[in-house]
Amino acid sequence: MSELMTGAELEERLRELGARRYHSLHPFHRMLHGGECSKGQVQAWALNRYYYQAMIPLKDASLIGRCEDPALRREWRKRLDDQDGDDSRPGGLERWLRLTDGLGLDREAVTSTRLLLPATRFAVQAYVHFVRERSLLEAVASCLTELFSPQIITERMSGMLAHYDYITPDILLYFDKRPPQAERDANFALEWVKREARTPEQQQAVIDTLAFKCDVLWCMLDALHHAYVTPGLIPPGAFVPEAADG
Amino acid sequence: MSELMTGAELEERLRELGARRYHSLHPFHRMLHGGECSKGQVQAWALNRYYYQAMIPLKDASLIGRCEDPALRREWRKRLDDQDGDDSRPGGLERWLRLTDGLGLDREAVTSTRLLLPATRFAVQAYVHFVRERSLLEAVASCLTELFSPQIITERMSGMLAHYDYITPDILLYFDKRPPQAERDANFALEWVKREARTPEQQQAVIDTLAFKCDVLWCMLDALHHAYVTPGLIPPGAFVPEAADG
Repeated sequence: MSELMTGAELEERLRELGARRYHSLHPFHRMLHGGECSKGQVQAWALNRYYYQAMIPLKDASLIGRCEDPALRREWRKRLDDQDGDDSRPGGLERWLRLTDGLGLDREAVTSTRLLLPATRFAVQAYVHFVRERSLLEAVASCLTELFSPQIITERMSGMLAHYDYITPDILLYFDKRPPQAERDANFALEWVKREARTPEQQQAVIDTLAFKCDVLWCMLDALHHAYVTPGLIPPGAFVPEAADG
Repeated sequence: MSELMTGAELEERLRELGARRYHSLHPFHRMLHGGECSKGQVQAWALNRYYYQAMIPLKDASLIGRCEDPALRREWRKRLDDQDGDDSRPGGLERWLRLTDGLGLDREAVTSTRLLLPATRFAVQAYVHFVRERSLLEAVASCLTELFSPQIITERMSGMLAHYDYITPDILLYFDKRPPQAERDANFALEWVKREARTPEQQQAVIDTLAFKCDVLWCMLDALHHAYVTPGLIPPGAFVPEAADG
C-alpha cells in the first residue's frame, strides 16, 4: 500500500484523474458543444440527462439521512435547496424542464422517464445506490466531479447558443446558476475529504470514487452515442427523434 | 386499467414481449454466433458476461433471504446449487471460468472485474438491486428471460463451435448444463407468477419486470457493441484486446 499523501498531493491526484476521465473528453460532448448534433440528438441528451437531475435530490437526501454531523447536514442541505427550489424560486430540476420544454419535448414524456435509455437509468441508479451504501467518505467524494463542471458548463452554454438557433438564453437558465453552486459545493467537499481521509486506504477510496463517478457520466454519454450517433442503434422502447429534425 | 387475464393470456403476453425484446435480436449476438467476432471481441464478451454470472448467486440468495415460504426457498436454492456447485461438482460460475481460461484471459483479471465495461457493472447491479428492492412477485418474475435462453444457448454453442477454431467443447461446458436447468427454473417461475399475480396491476408488474430484465441484457450487449464493434470506443480503464487477435 502506498504512503499517506498530503492533502495537496491527494488533490493533485484527483485533478489529474479528472483531466483524463471526465466526460468533457467524450465525443458526444464535443459534438454537442461544437454544433454537430441534430435537434433530435440534443433532445435525446436533455431527456436522458433529466433523469440524472431528478435523482440528485434523492442522492443528496440519502447522504444527509446517514450523516450524524449537523454541520455537514446543514452544508449538504444547500444542495436540496438548489435543486428543488422553494415556493418563491424554481430549483435546478424545474429549470432543467425549461430546457426540455424549449426543445419541444412533451413534459409528461420527460418526467415519466419512460423513454429513457436503459443505460441512463442503470448508471444513475448506480450513483444513488453508491451514495446510500458506501462509507460517508465515499458518499461525499462522489460529488467531486463538480470540480470540473464549471468549465464544461461554460463551454456548453456558449457553444450551444452559438450553434443552434432554437437554443436561447431563457431555456438555458439551468446553466446560468450552476457554476457558482458547483464551485462552492466542490470546494467544500474537496476540503472535507482532504481532512477526513486519514489513511492511505481512505485516500485511495476517494480516488476510486472519483473514477467510479467519471464512469457513471461517461457511460451515460456512451449510451447516447451508441443509440443516436454511431451506430444509431436505439434500444427497444427508448426515445425516437422525429425523422425531420433540424 | 385492463381486465384480469387468464394465466394462459399472461403467458402469451410474456412470450410475445420476449419475441420482440430478448437480446437474441441484438446485432452483437448475431455476430458472436455467426462467426463474425474477432477473438478480442469474444474475449470482451466472456469477460463482461462473467460479472453477470458472478452476481447471479447474490441475486438468488437475496430472493431466498426475503421469502417466507419454505417451499419456494427450497425450489430457489437449486439455483445456488447449480451456480456455486459443491465440493464434488463445479458450478456454473466455475464452468464460466473454463471458458475465459480457454480464451486465454488471465483468471485474476477476470475475477477482479477491474476490466469490466462500467455499463456492464451498472446493468448487473440494477438487476441485483431490483431483486432486493421490489416485491417478491417482481423478484421471481425477473428470471423469466430464462424462458428464452435454451434456444439462444443452443444456437450459441453450435455457432461458436462451427466458426471459431479456438472454441472447443471442453471450454463450453457451461452451456452444456444450462438448457435443462433454465427450462426447469423458467417453467417453475412462470407457473408461480401465473398463480400469484392475482390483480391486473400485479400482472402488469410481471410484464414490466420482463421488459426491465430484457433491458438489462440488451444494455450489456449495447455496451460491448459500442466499445468493441461500432464505433469501437473503449471507455477509460476497460479491457483492451491485443492488437494482433485473430
